[in-house]
Amino acid sequence: MRTIDWVDGAVEIIDQTVLPARTVVRRLSTVDELIAAIRSLAVRGAPALGVAGALGVALAARQYHDLADVPREQAGGYPSALADAVDRLENARPTAVNLASGVRRAAAQLANGPDAVLAEALAIRAEEIASSAAMAVRGADLVTSLCGPAPRLLTHCNTGALACVTGGTALGVIAELHRRGALGGVVASETRPLLQGARLTAWELGQLGVRYRLAVDGAGPFLMAQGQVDAVILGADRVCANGDVVNKVGTYAHALGARQAGIPFLVVAPESTMDPDTPSGAAVQIEERDAAEVLSFVGTRTAPDGAEAINPAFDITPHDLVTAIVTDQRTLRP
Amino acid sequence: MRTIDWVDGAVEIIDQTVLPARTVVRRLSTVDELIAAIRSLAVRGAPALGVAGALGVALAARQYHDLADVPREQAGGYPSALADAVDRLENARPTAVNLASGVRRAAAQLANGPDAVLAEALAIRAEEIASSAAMAVRGADLVTSLCGPAPRLLTHCNTGALACVTGGTALGVIAELHRRGALGGVVASETRPLLQGARLTAWELGQLGVRYRLAVDGAGPFLMAQGQVDAVILGADRVCANGDVVNKVGTYAHALGARQAGIPFLVVAPESTMDPDTPSGAAVQIEERDAAEVLSFVGTRTAPDGAEAINPAFDITPHDLVTAIVTDQRTLRP
Repeated sequence: MRTIDWVDGAVEIIDQTVLPARTVVRRLSTVDELIAAIRSLAVRGAPALGVAGALGVALAARQYHDLADVPREQAGGYPSALADAVDRLENARPTAVNLASGVRRAAAQLANGPDAVLAEALAIRAEEIASSAAMAVRGADLVTSLCGPAPRLLTHCNTGALACVTGGTALGVIAELHRRGALGGVVASETRPLLQGARLTAWELGQLGVRYRLAVDGAGPFLMAQGQVDAVILGADRVCANGDVVNKVGTYAHALGARQAGIPFLVVAPESTMDPDTPSGAAVQIEERDAAEVLSFVGTRTAPDGAEAINPAFDITPHDLVTAIVTDQRTLRP
Repeated sequence: MRTIDWVDGAVEIIDQTVLPARTVVRRLSTVDELIAAIRSLAVRGAPALGVAGALGVALAARQYHDLADVPREQAGGYPSALADAVDRLENARPTAVNLASGVRRAAAQLANGPDAVLAEALAIRAEEIASSAAMAVRGADLVTSLCGPAPRLLTHCNTGALACVTGGTALGVIAELHRRGALGGVVASETRPLLQGARLTAWELGQLGVRYRLAVDGAGPFLMAQGQVDAVILGADRVCANGDVVNKVGTYAHALGARQAGIPFLVVAPESTMDPDTPSGAAVQIEERDAAEVLSFVGTRTAPDGAEAINPAFDITPHDLVTAIVTDQRTLRP
C-alpha cells in the first residue's frame, strides 16, 4: 500500500493523524484539501511531501485548467488563481526541501498542460519508490560494516513507508536489516509533540514483525551512554550543502549523545532531500508550530491555563556530529 | 501550603498525580497508603521523599506501637511487622537517596518510642524548609554572577515547592530571581513520561506569576544551540561522591546541550541529597518504571498493541558536565 498516490483523478493518502488507532484512506480532490492535509501532518515526511507537492500541482492544473490556458504574458506569468495555489502549496510547510522542490518541478510543466504536470508528479513518485529501495540496501550494508551482524539501533521520528511512498529511509534500512536477519534490536523514541515514533514507527515496525522498545525522547542519550545502543539512524528533512542535517526536533540531542557514546550517527535521505542551494543549517527556516501541540494531546489539556510554549518542529545537527549520510546514490561523510 | 506535612496524627500530601487540573489534599493514615502514594508519584521529589520516608516511619511506629515495645533482643532486631514496614518504605523507590536516608534517620529513633520518631521526622521537615530558603539565596547569587541581570533559564522536571516541603531547589532559585527582578525568562521542559514540567512546574510558575514557555524534552539542546538559553538549572535525586548527578531522565541530554552551547549547567540540591557513600553514578540503581507510562499519554493509549517500552526514570550526568552544584551550605564545582 502506498502512503500517497494518484487514484482516479485525485490524491489519496493514508491519514497519519489517526494511526495507529485507525487506518483511514483520505481522498483529496482539491489543492486546498491537500494543503490542509500537509499542514495537519496527515501526510508528512520529506519524500512523501515532495510527492504531495507535485501531485498538488497536478490537482491545481486540473482545477484551474481554463486559467492555465491563458498565455503567461496576459496574466503576468501564471494566472493568479493557479499561481496562488502553487505558492500556497510550496509554502504549506517551510522546512523540508522536498515539498518546495516537488512543487517547483511539477510547476515547471504547467505550460505543457495538466497531463504533463501529472506525468512529472508520477515520475517523482516513481523516483522516491526507487530511492527507498536503493537506500535500504546501501544503508544496511553500511550499518553491518560499522556495527557488525546484530546492531541495536535507535531511531527517531518516523522514516518508514509512511514518510515516503513505500519503503522508507532510515526505517527502510532497519526493515532491510530485519529481512537479512542482521538486526539486534530497535529503540524508537516517541517523538513529542506529535508522537510519530510512538504512533507511526511503532505501527510500521509491528506490521514488519520487528520487535522494538519505545523510549521517551529524553532517554536516548542516556541509553547510549549505558551501552544499550550501537548506532543512531534517522532521516532528514533537508541536508544542507555543508552536510548540516535539518530533521525532527530532538535529532540534535541524539547526535550529541551518539558522539559522547562514541557510536555512529547515521542519516538516511534520498538525493531529493540534499539541498546544495542552502549553504548551512543557519540559513534554514525552522517551522514553529502551534503551541497547542505541546500544551495538550488528543483533546486533553495537560498544562495549566495561561501556559505558553515554544514548539520548533525541527532542529539542526551540525555536520561534524554526522558519521555518514546515506542517499540512494552515495554515502557522504561530512 | 506545605507539599507534605504531619496533621492530626497522619500524613497529608498535595496529590501530584491530579495537578494542575485539581488541587487535592490526601490524608494518609497507614504506611501502606504512604508507600502507594510514593510509588504512584503522588508525592515525589528528593527532599519531599526524605520527609515522606521519615513521616512514614512515624506512621509505622504508631501502627506497630505494641510491637515496638518488644525489646529488640527478643525479636531479632525490630519486630518483624515494623521492620518489614520500614524496609518497604526504604525501598519504595530506589534512586533518590533522600527516601532511604530519611527512613533510616527516623528509624534510628524507633527504640526511643513513637514520639521520638515523629520528632526526628519533623526535624527533617524543618531542615528541608530551611534548606530551600538557603539554596534560593545562594543559587540566585550564583546565577546572577554567572549570567548577569536577566538570565533566560531552562529547567527540567519539577524542583519547586512540590518537590520539597516549601520553596524548592532549582525552581526555588528561579522564584528568588523573579522576586529580585533578576530573571530574563524561563523555558520548562515538559518532562515525559509523567509531565512533571508541563503539569507541576508550569502550575507553580503560574502561581508565582512567572511567565514561562513549555518545550518538549527533545527541544532543549537545540534552543541552547540557538542562543535562547543562558543557563540550565535543575535538581538532583542523588549526588554521588565524585559529583555525578542522578536526576530525572532527560537531564543528561540537557547537560550535553549546555556543554556544546558553552552555557552553565547548574544543579541545586540540599546537603541531604549529597551521597558520599556512593562513589559514582555507575553504582546507582536507576529505577525502571512501568512501560505503560511511555505507551500512553495522560491516560490515552498512543502506541499500538504489542508495543514494548524501556522506561528509566532517571539518568546519570557525569560530573565533568556539571558547572556547579549549589547546596544549602556550599557551592561545589566538580
